Amino acid sequence: MEEKIYSIDPATEELARKAANEGIETLWDRKKAMKTPCGFGEQGLCCRICAMGPCRISPTKDKGAQKGICGATADVIIARNLARMIAGGTATHSDHGRDIAHVLHMAKRDGNYKITDEKKLLNLAKEWEVEIENRDIYDIAHEVAEIALKEFGKPFGTLRFLERAPEQRKSVWEKNDIRTGAIDKEIATIMHSTHIGCAADAKDLIHKGMRTSLADGWGGSMIGTEFSDILFGMPVPRETEANLGVLEEDQVNIIVHGHEPSLSEMMVLAAEDPELLQLVEEVGAKGINLSGMCCTSNEVAMRHGVKIAGNLNQQELAVFTGAVEAIIVDVQCIFPALAPLTKCYHTKFITTSPKAKITGATHMEFEEGKALQSAKEIVREAILNFKNRDAKKVFIPKAKSPAVVGYSVEAIKKQLDKVVNSQIDEGGTLKPLADCITSGVIRGAAGVVGCNNPKVKHDYGHVELMKELIKNDVIVVTTGCAAQAAAKAGLMSKEARKLAGKGLAKVCELVDIPPVLHMGSCVDISRILVLVSELAKLLKVDISDLPVVGAAPEWMSEKAIAIGTYVVTSGIDTWLGVVPPVTGSDLVVDILTNKAKDIVGAKFHVEPDPHKAAQQMIERIEEKRETLGLAAEA
Amino acid sequence: MEEKIYSIDPATEELARKAANEGIETLWDRKKAMKTPCGFGEQGLCCRICAMGPCRISPTKDKGAQKGICGATADVIIARNLARMIAGGTATHSDHGRDIAHVLHMAKRDGNYKITDEKKLLNLAKEWEVEIENRDIYDIAHEVAEIALKEFGKPFGTLRFLERAPEQRKSVWEKNDIRTGAIDKEIATIMHSTHIGCAADAKDLIHKGMRTSLADGWGGSMIGTEFSDILFGMPVPRETEANLGVLEEDQVNIIVHGHEPSLSEMMVLAAEDPELLQLVEEVGAKGINLSGMCCTSNEVAMRHGVKIAGNLNQQELAVFTGAVEAIIVDVQCIFPALAPLTKCYHTKFITTSPKAKITGATHMEFEEGKALQSAKEIVREAILNFKNRDAKKVFIPKAKSPAVVGYSVEAIKKQLDKVVNSQIDEGGTLKPLADCITSGVIRGAAGVVGCNNPKVKHDYGHVELMKELIKNDVIVVTTGCAAQAAAKAGLMSKEARKLAGKGLAKVCELVDIPPVLHMGSCVDISRILVLVSELAKLLKVDISDLPVVGAAPEWMSEKAIAIGTYVVTSGIDTWLGVVPPVTGSDLVVDILTNKAKDIVGAKFHVEPDPHKAAQQMIERIEEKRETLGLAAEA
Repeated sequence: MEEKIYSIDPATEELARKAANEGIETLWDRKKAMKTPCGFGEQGLCCRICAMGPCRISPTKDKGAQKGICGATADVIIARNLARMIAGGTATHSDHGRDIAHVLHMAKRDGNYKITDEKKLLNLAKEWEVEIENRDIYDIAHEVAEIALKEFGKPFGTLRFLERAPEQRKSVWEKNDIRTGAIDKEIATIMHSTHIGCAADAKDLIHKGMRTSLADGWGGSMIGTEFSDILFGMPVPRETEANLGVLEEDQVNIIVHGHEPSLSEMMVLAAEDPELLQLVEEVGAKGINLSGMCCTSNEVAMRHGVKIAGNLNQQELAVFTGAVEAIIVDVQCIFPALAPLTKCYHTKFITTSPKAKITGATHMEFEEGKALQSAKEIVREAILNFKNRDAKKVFIPKAKSPAVVGYSVEAIKKQLDKVVNSQIDEGGTLKPLADCITSGVIRGAAGVVGCNNPKVKHDYGHVELMKELIKNDVIVVTTGCAAQAAAKAGLMSKEARKLAGKGLAKVCELVDIPPVLHMGSCVDISRILVLVSELAKLLKVDISDLPVVGAAPEWMSEKAIAIGTYVVTSGIDTWLGVVPPVTGSDLVVDILTNKAKDIVGAKFHVEPDPHKAAQQMIERIEEKRETLGLAAEA
Repeated sequence: MEEKIYSIDPATEELARKAANEGIETLWDRKKAMKTPCGFGEQGLCCRICAMGPCRISPTKDKGAQKGICGATADVIIARNLARMIAGGTATHSDHGRDIAHVLHMAKRDGNYKITDEKKLLNLAKEWEVEIENRDIYDIAHEVAEIALKEFGKPFGTLRFLERAPEQRKSVWEKNDIRTGAIDKEIATIMHSTHIGCAADAKDLIHKGMRTSLADGWGGSMIGTEFSDILFGMPVPRETEANLGVLEEDQVNIIVHGHEPSLSEMMVLAAEDPELLQLVEEVGAKGINLSGMCCTSNEVAMRHGVKIAGNLNQQELAVFTGAVEAIIVDVQCIFPALAPLTKCYHTKFITTSPKAKITGATHMEFEEGKALQSAKEIVREAILNFKNRDAKKVFIPKAKSPAVVGYSVEAIKKQLDKVVNSQIDEGGTLKPLADCITSGVIRGAAGVVGCNNPKVKHDYGHVELMKELIKNDVIVVTTGCAAQAAAKAGLMSKEARKLAGKGLAKVCELVDIPPVLHMGSCVDISRILVLVSELAKLLKVDISDLPVVGAAPEWMSEKAIAIGTYVVTSGIDTWLGVVPPVTGSDLVVDILTNKAKDIVGAKFHVEPDPHKAAQQMIERIEEKRETLGLAAEA
């Protein structure tokens, strides 16, 4: 078999090669054009925070500049840059969470946005001590939303959702002054502390980064997840299909790409509008085929079974199929490259968020106040564009895979409950999962998350790591582009249990789940935090005691850095498949990959080879099992 | 006369040469060691926002990579980086303002922090519609403080202080969607919008930067200024001295360095403590000589006449005098280089803020709850360190200059009122100033502000520009390191009116002021905003109509970028003496130095030569005068 150049995913490989042959520029070409990346930047030895520089520190310890003009050392420069990456990622996830909270705040019974999961809302209201007796559910919703909005800027106090962690974990945070305050305040304070002439101690800066990162996972991200469930419904297992083969030759193909479900949910509704479906007929198409890309795709796949067109590195290839009438985007991970690319095709590239206008795109601002109408206008544009499709340019790859998606914590608990029929808790129970782990049938769990990155062969890091883990009876939960890689590779079909070790395969069969569970978008890593917290409480241990590990094999964004940091700060060892820009400082490397353990009971590991990473993760799980005194063998 | 290498300031030049001869490293050595700065970084063509890169764009349009891996062009990369610099600066000033608001929130009658200016508090309470009748002043203070704290994070609405601008200016902001919301939210949202795959339109990104910058000038900075006045007293004209010659050979020299007056105010009090003065005698010193550096110096000079030891580039030289027992710092513009340097001397380098720990410094956390006690402990350390001074190493330069500092808007109005004895308003009046400007006796006003930067001969940019302006009857208001440059150069003595043009000299004599007015620290540029707003209202025009200009001849920090942007966005043309890292994008350069005018009625100018800059500024003032129909000659 010919060696794959771009991707282990056949659709991507096929299209990327075709694009290369036809001289259509993709990210791989741009990576090639970049030639050797800047060595200072790669090692983190470059500082552009003030205008006395730019400064760069010589990577050779006894030669060249060892300090920036202000006197900042490599340690300080690298730690500051890292802290700012964490702030960038935290801001990004949190600003998404804020938007969703605003949507709940404007939800009304006769509006476009309604409450779908009343139970989840009431549970949250109780958790936050909001009066619920004899009140209109929308009044409750608005009060809960306002409390959430205040989490971003309250002058006093720490984050409410931190309370969801086990007591042991809260003590660790308390002791180390890691309990984060208002989300936006943490971000602003990090930006302040990393300004020229402020914090200049690597350990302290990383500590600050840890605190800020909690404002992502246990703050903005968790708000995003909770409120999305309340508004759009709790994800439950659903069948879907994944990969560019989901595009239909005879239908109007619309791709939603980005992150916030407030846009994509309305697109789902608009795509079912009878008038628009009439228009579809008029233009001679067989229907509207809505599919998704990146995290927006995860959101609508989990709630509606909307098909997954692909992950990050496939966004340009989707346009390259020539079969996409419109690609509708909101925020994050949208390549600006789509603008010139779509000009070579009939594809409309429509930006919708005031937070992410893109030169060359058509901006149709998505007004949440009249959301459905906005969505319909966008869909209409797409339908009307069907006639402009150039049949000669159309090439849709065949590859697509069936997948079961939508494993929210609640769904997992219900699924488990079906087996044991516990009746203990109407919400279901994690006890069977805990039992499987303590008995050793399942050795542990791994969260495999994150982006694509052209530094890694597309999807290779994700898929190889997950295969290795499930083969060794480690159940995998996944989100984001990693989840989509798994779906495309068939790891989310129930058949995939054949790839699992004996114990895990048995559990999958019994519980009727795939060995790799789709838990959602990147903000939904907050679901994993809830899952491990409940598991830890059930086993009466700290999160850091659990035989649980995390990995981001192909990460690339600041969000991923923030995620990795809050996962470690929450007590879970995390493996990175791409080297972060910190190698210029032995001290920073030592803190992240070693000393962090002394503070938060977990640390980073960097291992680009997914097979080696899997072995290390399994070893770590076994170490944890031993420490906990869990069964050495099932 | 031998040409000066480092600085036009004789004390700095003398010490920097001596340090070079003795092999003591200073910022100039580190700048030299940096060799040629990175061309990509200098032009802004480097992107480190995600880990697909680092990416760098070829500065040659037809050769090399023209896009980052995501497809971001030079325009996008540069605009994103600029927006992040604005966010960094805004966060820094605002987090300072937040701290001061917290101090007011904890102020109490028998506490360390008290209300000093009740009238200013009551005025603000009225402005914010806080009930003041029959209430304890401290209750009012706490309510006002809480409102201020909410300005950082309120989920809805725009900034309160924006209301202080003239109606015309508010309309410009309204029309262009530049009215900023909660301070921290703006910062978080900019961090989100500049994340990989979000905003990718240079014009839009700069627009976002403009909105965010208002959260600095009309937000955090203005809160910082207002609340500092309430707590520590309104600055009024006071005599002081400036330059390293203020250090005393036979006294315990303590330098306060940094920004927030909550620390330095307590240091002033502690330095007067009888017990500590007793200790001073015991160690054989003739007293405690407190002096300041950077903005902290401006704060205490304006309120107590505390002497000014120097500005940014002199911080290492202060230690190099061998005569400083302790340098006490809080946040911002503190060179980490002080840590290794102080190790070569007896000088204690004490960090006090949890936001700015520095490797190698002694951290004595300044607890605002027991502030005076903390300050006393710090002063005691310094006194006890007197005995460790090595007389052989002591070299205090002679140079120092008398200066009158402390021209708050209120002080200026009172001073003017003395002349006309208007009796119209008990707070005084700006009318005489307006009259002087309309009649042409004074041609206009210039705000000259900002940092030092080794790219410019120290103080040269500030002093030459100011001299040229006052010579041409342009009155100068100044803050920050620029103000200190002026003070050291004697431009803040009343004698300096001899350097002014005929008209300005006359006004200076009549009103009994120097031609260059010290308006405070960098956050106090908010005073200039209030000044120009009142002036514009008096003349019934927009700020952008006034014959008023701004300049930052030696800027280096993100704060300066934020300041420049809010000054331009407030309608004032601004000259930069250091080229910002944007030259890699013709589009960004065009927006900043040209198109911005169409949006906000003002733009940036870049001119490293202060004489040329002065001429351009004067021309601009004359253009404005002509448009307003003001007298062509006095």
